[in-house]
Amino acid sequence: MSDKPLVGILMGSDNDYAIMVETAKALKELDVPFEMTVSSAHRTPARTAEYVRSARDRGLQVLIAGAGAAAHLAGVVAAETTLPVIAVPIDATSLKGLDALLAMVQMPAGIPVATMAIGKAGARNAGIFAAQILATRDASLAERLERQRRKMAEGVLEKAEKLQKRLAEDGF
Amino acid sequence: MSDKPLVGILMGSDNDYAIMVETAKALKELDVPFEMTVSSAHRTPARTAEYVRSARDRGLQVLIAGAGAAAHLAGVVAAETTLPVIAVPIDATSLKGLDALLAMVQMPAGIPVATMAIGKAGARNAGIFAAQILATRDASLAERLERQRRKMAEGVLEKAEKLQKRLAEDGF
Amino acid sequence: MSDKPLVGILMGSDNDYAIMVETAKALKELDVPFEMTVSSAHRTPARTAEYVRSARDRGLQVLIAGAGAAAHLAGVVAAETTLPVIAVPIDATSLKGLDALLAMVQMPAGIPVATMAIGKAGARNAGIFAAQILATRDASLAERLERQRRKMAEGVLEKAEKLQKRLAEDGF
Amino acid sequence: MSDKPLVGILMGSDNDYAIMVETAKALKELDVPFEMTVSSAHRTPARTAEYVRSARDRGLQVLIAGAGAAAHLAGVVAAETTLPVIAVPIDATSLKGLDALLAMVQMPAGIPVATMAIGKAGARNAGIFAAQILATRDASLAERLERQRRKMAEGVLEKAEKLQKRLAEDGF
Amino acid sequence: MSDKPLVGILMGSDNDYAIMVETAKALKELDVPFEMTVSSAHRTPARTAEYVRSARDRGLQVLIAGAGAAAHLAGVVAAETTLPVIAVPIDATSLKGLDALLAMVQMPAGIPVATMAIGKAGARNAGIFAAQILATRDASLAERLERQRRKMAEGVLEKAEKLQKRLAEDGF
Amino acid sequence: MSDKPLVGILMGSDNDYAIMVETAKALKELDVPFEMTVSSAHRTPARTAEYVRSARDRGLQVLIAGAGAAAHLAGVVAAETTLPVIAVPIDATSLKGLDALLAMVQMPAGIPVATMAIGKAGARNAGIFAAQILATRDASLAERLERQRRKMAEGVLEKAEKLQKRLAEDGF
Amino acid sequence: MSDKPLVGILMGSDNDYAIMVETAKALKELDVPFEMTVSSAHRTPARTAEYVRSARDRGLQVLIAGAGAAAHLAGVVAAETTLPVIAVPIDATSLKGLDALLAMVQMPAGIPVATMAIGKAGARNAGIFAAQILATRDASLAERLERQRRKMAEGVLEKAEKLQKRLAEDGF
Amino acid sequence: MSDKPLVGILMGSDNDYAIMVETAKALKELDVPFEMTVSSAHRTPARTAEYVRSARDRGLQVLIAGAGAAAHLAGVVAAETTLPVIAVPIDATSLKGLDALLAMVQMPAGIPVATMAIGKAGARNAGIFAAQILATRDASLAERLERQRRKMAEGVLEKAEKLQKRLAEDGF
Repeated sequence: MSDKPLVGILMGSDNDYAIMVETAKALKELDVPFEMTVSSAHRTPARTAEYVRSARDRGLQVLIAGAGAAAHLAGVVAAETTLPVIAVPIDATSLKGLDALLAMVQMPAGIPVATMAIGKAGARNAGIFAAQILATRDASLAERLERQRRKMAEGVLEKAEKLQKRLAEDGF
Repeated sequence: MSDKPLVGILMGSDNDYAIMVETAKALKELDVPFEMTVSSAHRTPARTAEYVRSARDRGLQVLIAGAGAAAHLAGVVAAETTLPVIAVPIDATSLKGLDALLAMVQMPAGIPVATMAIGKAGARNAGIFAAQILATRDASLAERLERQRRKMAEGVLEKAEKLQKRLAEDGF
Repeated sequence: MSDKPLVGILMGSDNDYAIMVETAKALKELDVPFEMTVSSAHRTPARTAEYVRSARDRGLQVLIAGAGAAAHLAGVVAAETTLPVIAVPIDATSLKGLDALLAMVQMPAGIPVATMAIGKAGARNAGIFAAQILATRDASLAERLERQRRKMAEGVLEKAEKLQKRLAEDGF
Repeated sequence: MSDKPLVGILMGSDNDYAIMVETAKALKELDVPFEMTVSSAHRTPARTAEYVRSARDRGLQVLIAGAGAAAHLAGVVAAETTLPVIAVPIDATSLKGLDALLAMVQMPAGIPVATMAIGKAGARNAGIFAAQILATRDASLAERLERQRRKMAEGVLEKAEKLQKRLAEDGF
Repeated sequence: MSDKPLVGILMGSDNDYAIMVETAKALKELDVPFEMTVSSAHRTPARTAEYVRSARDRGLQVLIAGAGAAAHLAGVVAAETTLPVIAVPIDATSLKGLDALLAMVQMPAGIPVATMAIGKAGARNAGIFAAQILATRDASLAERLERQRRKMAEGVLEKAEKLQKRLAEDGF
Repeated sequence: MSDKPLVGILMGSDNDYAIMVETAKALKELDVPFEMTVSSAHRTPARTAEYVRSARDRGLQVLIAGAGAAAHLAGVVAAETTLPVIAVPIDATSLKGLDALLAMVQMPAGIPVATMAIGKAGARNAGIFAAQILATRDASLAERLERQRRKMAEGVLEKAEKLQKRLAEDGF
Repeated sequence: MSDKPLVGILMGSDNDYAIMVETAKALKELDVPFEMTVSSAHRTPARTAEYVRSARDRGLQVLIAGAGAAAHLAGVVAAETTLPVIAVPIDATSLKGLDALLAMVQMPAGIPVATMAIGKAGARNAGIFAAQILATRDASLAERLERQRRKMAEGVLEKAEKLQKRLAEDGF
Repeated sequence: MSDKPLVGILMGSDNDYAIMVETAKALKELDVPFEMTVSSAHRTPARTAEYVRSARDRGLQVLIAGAGAAAHLAGVVAAETTLPVIAVPIDATSLKGLDALLAMVQMPAGIPVATMAIGKAGARNAGIFAAQILATRDASLAERLERQRRKMAEGVLEKAEKLQKRLAEDGF
């Protein structure tokens, strides 16, 4: 993407890419420039803190953090900035993402983290939600969001039609 | 508040006021004008939908929904707008808010809801997060958020000092 | 089916068809005419509301909603009608349907939703339960339900007999 | 109540009365004649089975079972009848009703039980849902249900108005 | 087995055989005569009740019930007898046996059910526990149980030895 | 009690007495001689092991262990004997007994522990279940258990009658 | 305490003092010098990082972190040091410490955190465990730990004796 | 390994080897001599107790116990020693390790067990944590731990670079 990134996406491990690529796709669909990197709350705390502290000056308006297990990344990011921080809990352990969800959503008063659903749905929604934040001052982006929403509704109608065929095929 | 509201706060029941007043306090501290009402996803669906559909035209930039039990309010609000929607799960049943949390955070792809912690911490953070969204285009608000953050840090230092006295009093 | 539908089945996504077809099969077995469509609480709220509001006039007596994740569909349907609404929670996320179950069953006082088991068992039971409702005024359907119940009991006896052979084969 | 009961309410223990009285209140508000008794799935299995087997002949159209802990009552009732059976899980142990909920809602295919929310909300909704079933053949009851629904909506409006006063009193 | 059965094993569905065969194996290893059948709490309540009521007269001393989902079988069995009843929760739904466990173990005061672990481990232990009950009056069986226990301990020693080889092979 | 104890009750802490006294009461009601002591799996492992190893020779036929938190007591007891061991999980931490339940019930294959409900209901049932084990060779005890069961059933009838009065008093 | 601290105790909020004082008591009982302060992972990330980075040079050998909710403190501390870090999850939200437990214990590979039980038991054990670490090179402390252990065992014996009196008083 | 072991690793079953080999690898990487064996809390309690009681005299400084299901091994080990005991909960049942986690972490006051994450991450961290304990008196090991930490950080940077290529390849 050529434009200067407005959204910074962090993931705790490159294993999380298969999930967090959904955030990238959502932002790309909405023409929101972004950047994406790997930075761990635990293995590279200094790098993570520096990334976040410099975020505003580099023009980033929203930060998104995806992580699994004891998912501290979003909280650690939020501790270093007052930019909006969005969290994507990832199903990376035998507890199926419940650990990551609670570790992200139960932030104490004062340091908000906006938590999305566990996994791909949450990753996609993180991208859309970042766009919704930016759209509060970008009428064109707001219109693209509205168009996307209408398209989703049309998709439901198409699926409803296909279902009628399927029901007939299945003998109902 | 005299200014035109930028944030609309909905709660599913007036029983939720004791929690959602924390959102109001947080917004007031940060000088963000808001409005607040009771509207139920289940008991007044039409009222809720109308409130949300007219929100943008009335100047609202962010919507916050607090609800307990099978907490559909935030999802129902998000279904009617592309404005950012923040959810506050409330501990209103014997399941202690876990029901409300899952009913809010596990939104399907396409319709994001930014979920905060269960209860008062989440309600306060919803207000701060709404301010963080608005601050992406309001440098003065961004500064107020930074000041609040610094004050929180100072509060920790004061508490750390008091702890030393308490330890001494307790004979350590 | 040629008869005028008495039961309307809604699912939030066409991905839910593999589960909700069990409802269709159960109703067909019991000769209860039904219709089935895709309509999302979040992606097509207006379509869902219209479907439900017109349901009674179109002759529908019972509505069934199947959905996964933050499964608001049944609650949203119940908010628009006083017809009986049956909910089928679907295992569609890493939380294995616990999210959908709690989002469906924990309805607040005033707006009931009759929740079935997660997944295929629940989908089949939704169909049977709809028939049980209709059978309160249809003696012939009541008899078909009784016959089905007796057949189930006979099925258990057959399985009990087969088990004896299997035990012998397995050397017990 | 003078009319012949249409709804039979069972509870596993008289300790459940404080919850199940909400079902009675809901039915009374809607002028639905009912009867209520204590019968345990475990302590009086024969009594429970006899009650259920004779229910249809005594004119009962819907059965409601409230129980806590390993709440088998609704399933045991449903095993003896094809009348619609509604379940109310009760918070009666340290697991806060999660045990009763799962023991009621996870019924195997073939024997449906319509589960409501844990506790008072569920008990009230059981009464309303029973009325919704009966209203499929009683236009007057259907109208009473609609009226109740409108009244609930009006109640929300009143609460919304009161909230404005409270906000003013609280200095917002 | 030629001897008169002392243990009766019930399972709610023939799908449970793959688990409950572990109970049969355990009893056979310990030379405890048993019988096994399919009988459902919900689909064949009368058959189940009759089986249990006649159990003592037919010489059965212990009953074992394996079931999944809303696993009422053990409770329903225990309601009809004062013989010891052992429960095996089976992982048969998306909730992985947690539903069956809670539906079995949380029995109300007065009607005990002795619950084992979810799945195969629990099924095997149900057989051993039944033998332990019978061994309170059968010194020879008590000795067989002791021998089995010693053999288990020897098995651990053998595995400990093999582990040393494996560690060496793996380069430690 | 003058008779030689047949049942040994262990509890991990004297804090558990308020729960485990229910076991004692149940055994006393049924005239089953028992003994009771405090012995911890963690604080007095040698004492616990010695108690269990000498149990059979001292005439004990059944052991009951009540414990909370990481409740290892029952498993540790079962590891030292082939006598039947019954477990009572106690709600002693913020996790409300779920920790104790899982730590007791999920025993590996080979070493059974018969787990009862969490808390007082489970403690009472442990006593009754121990009596059921002993009654397999004591016809008089078997009769006392039957009598207790009939009395429980009568108790339900009495409560059912009282409920009618209460309903009348409450205006139903 | 006059000696140079060997253990540093951090808590996320002064509200945690009532729990974390148990750590202090345990260390004092064992004559292990310690220091204690308030420092938040989220409100004072820089302070927390500086505290930890300087810990080794100031002579600290073990760090203990107590926190509730999305309890990131222990992980954040562990990210900045290779000293052993012990975590105490605190029950500070409606989820009763399950959130803090999972947020602490589920650390990713590479950055260990030694998690204790939720609440006071865990806080006391954190102090004892820190002493156990230090005792690997301090024979006198090792002896004090052994003495404490023996005293605990004696305490159980005393309680066992008192239980006999209580049983007699209660008529058993 | 030629050196005298400083760390003893116990696992409850040889099935746990696939997980616990991660502990061995971590210790080998850090040049910490260790030994590893199979010993069950339930099947070989005497062997386990003897192993632990002789541990200190044989030069072991830290013990690590990995187990699944009702994972008592770590607690049983900790009951026999005041050496530091580290626990690795293993996902060995349908409850996915939640049972093992709670059975290990919720130790009562007085007998600490340092619990790691469920599964491989926890097994690796157990090895590293044991090294951290030993490093409090071994400067060379402390330096090896620091080096490992730096290498992990470098690994994150490499992954961050690779991610940029992958993003380009994927068309972002």
